[in-house]
Amino acid sequence: MLLYILGMIGIAAFAITGVISSGKRDMDLFSIVLLGMVTSLGGGTIRDTILGVESVYWVKDTSYLWVAFLSSLFAFFAVRIIDDRQRVFHYADAFGLALFTVVATERVLTLGFSPTIAITMGVTTGVAGGIIRDVLSNRPPMVLGREFYATPAFIGAVLLVLLQKNIPSHEYNSIYAVALIFILRLFAIHKGLYYPSWLLYKKR
Amino acid sequence: MLLYILGMIGIAAFAITGVISSGKRDMDLFSIVLLGMVTSLGGGTIRDTILGVESVYWVKDTSYLWVAFLSSLFAFFAVRIIDDRQRVFHYADAFGLALFTVVATERVLTLGFSPTIAITMGVTTGVAGGIIRDVLSNRPPMVLGREFYATPAFIGAVLLVLLQKNIPSHEYNSIYAVALIFILRLFAIHKGLYYPSWLLYKKR
Amino acid sequence: MLLYILGMIGIAAFAITGVISSGKRDMDLFSIVLLGMVTSLGGGTIRDTILGVESVYWVKDTSYLWVAFLSSLFAFFAVRIIDDRQRVFHYADAFGLALFTVVATERVLTLGFSPTIAITMGVTTGVAGGIIRDVLSNRPPMVLGREFYATPAFIGAVLLVLLQKNIPSHEYNSIYAVALIFILRLFAIHKGLYYPSWLLYKKR
Repeated sequence: MLLYILGMIGIAAFAITGVISSGKRDMDLFSIVLLGMVTSLGGGTIRDTILGVESVYWVKDTSYLWVAFLSSLFAFFAVRIIDDRQRVFHYADAFGLALFTVVATERVLTLGFSPTIAITMGVTTGVAGGIIRDVLSNRPPMVLGREFYATPAFIGAVLLVLLQKNIPSHEYNSIYAVALIFILRLFAIHKGLYYPSWLLYKKR
Repeated sequence: MLLYILGMIGIAAFAITGVISSGKRDMDLFSIVLLGMVTSLGGGTIRDTILGVESVYWVKDTSYLWVAFLSSLFAFFAVRIIDDRQRVFHYADAFGLALFTVVATERVLTLGFSPTIAITMGVTTGVAGGIIRDVLSNRPPMVLGREFYATPAFIGAVLLVLLQKNIPSHEYNSIYAVALIFILRLFAIHKGLYYPSWLLYKKR
Repeated sequence: MLLYILGMIGIAAFAITGVISSGKRDMDLFSIVLLGMVTSLGGGTIRDTILGVESVYWVKDTSYLWVAFLSSLFAFFAVRIIDDRQRVFHYADAFGLALFTVVATERVLTLGFSPTIAITMGVTTGVAGGIIRDVLSNRPPMVLGREFYATPAFIGAVLLVLLQKNIPSHEYNSIYAVALIFILRLFAIHKGLYYPSWLLYKKR
């Protein structure tokens, strides 16, 4: 139940980033809603496709589809009264990343896959929606930038797997993992947190 | 049967847009044919993957594959004698959008999915091939522009669902829906039809 | 067994291209490893998804995942001591293209699909990883350039199908096909091999 709610909040968060991201050109309501929906549903769609589940989650339970649609619609109008769109974009993106990674990791674990697959699919689900959004809005994917992005997701997914192994089905396990990813990402945004230079790859 | 033919025409139409779209750089026959095939088969591939059907449609029935291949090959040579390539591109794209949206909506309805899923998958199938084409040819996706693009597809899919509910399996239902989408799209192309400005999202 | 090893080498080769390709911007270790993994696992993931196999290959056998991960990690450090990165990039890409095309063609044949599907999926698997890599690194997809790229893959896949039909399960069939693709691609790189101009599409 908690996972279900967290998943829905993640969809809403990513829908907002999709809508803000589209602000580069004149776009109409429907196109923007579409980009919001693709951003918020894309990650989980890729996850379910790779795992080979019957139909992807939002086909089985259309409430996900409606949440994505209504959040995008809401964000379309709400975004006009926001002053600092970039800040909202980055916060919502960090929040969506944290929620999607954790929900996906736990879901894949529950389906009986190994921790390796759970962590891989968790990170994949967390970052894939944002990659699609960035490619479609014609900007370099955030995940391929210098700042911590995939790394917090990875650390959070590992934490969740460890917690679930040692304190199985403890209520707050996913909350801890979400908080860790979100906080690491906030640090990355505000303090420009990144790897030491010997772990960066510089063009020659 | 009618659906089958409409689907084939849609594949041919999108193959042409893929070939014309590739004209930005020097490209060879095989690469262009590949882009044409990806454009024309991409939308349905994503649809079948999301719905979780066994194998995608062109694996089960390779005649789709051959139509995509031969249309792209034909378009490669035919495009040289076309004067106004942009016009042909936009018309073929509008026609393909109309056909794919309607064929996919009806197909998904027939498979027993809900109207919500049918409309979502109809629009997705209609626009996805063009998005892949535009991303690969390095131009901003048409669907994310200001002019009516996804909206006509959405309206046509809704019309088809309504018609099928009230006059089930009436022969011309799909023809009406195709015509509606195509005409709305032509209006958008020629008259620059778009939403009133309060439904546009402007960058600040 | 031979196929298994060839597949693993292909993954390592593509992982290296993903890592080198990412050198356009300052990127950190984890993002680069991610791009390497997406490049090397992407083609086979699309193949398995289209064919509708249960779960994609690296979910069933995580050793693929580890090879992709470790090769990317290795490439990240090894790339610093390479002088001519572009040359290594092109060679590794040609090698990966050859291996993936052949392994995929044979695998799809073994699954009982028709030669048409085997060749189509072989070429698709060979080029798809590179397309994803190029789109994510914001450069025009190599396969859509003027030089021979998809054509060698196509010729190699056809050769393999012919060999398998006439000298079934001969040990070296796949080696011959890999060699043919690799050599054709080397010629394309060094001699700028491309189609005669009447098979090129020039922008007007």
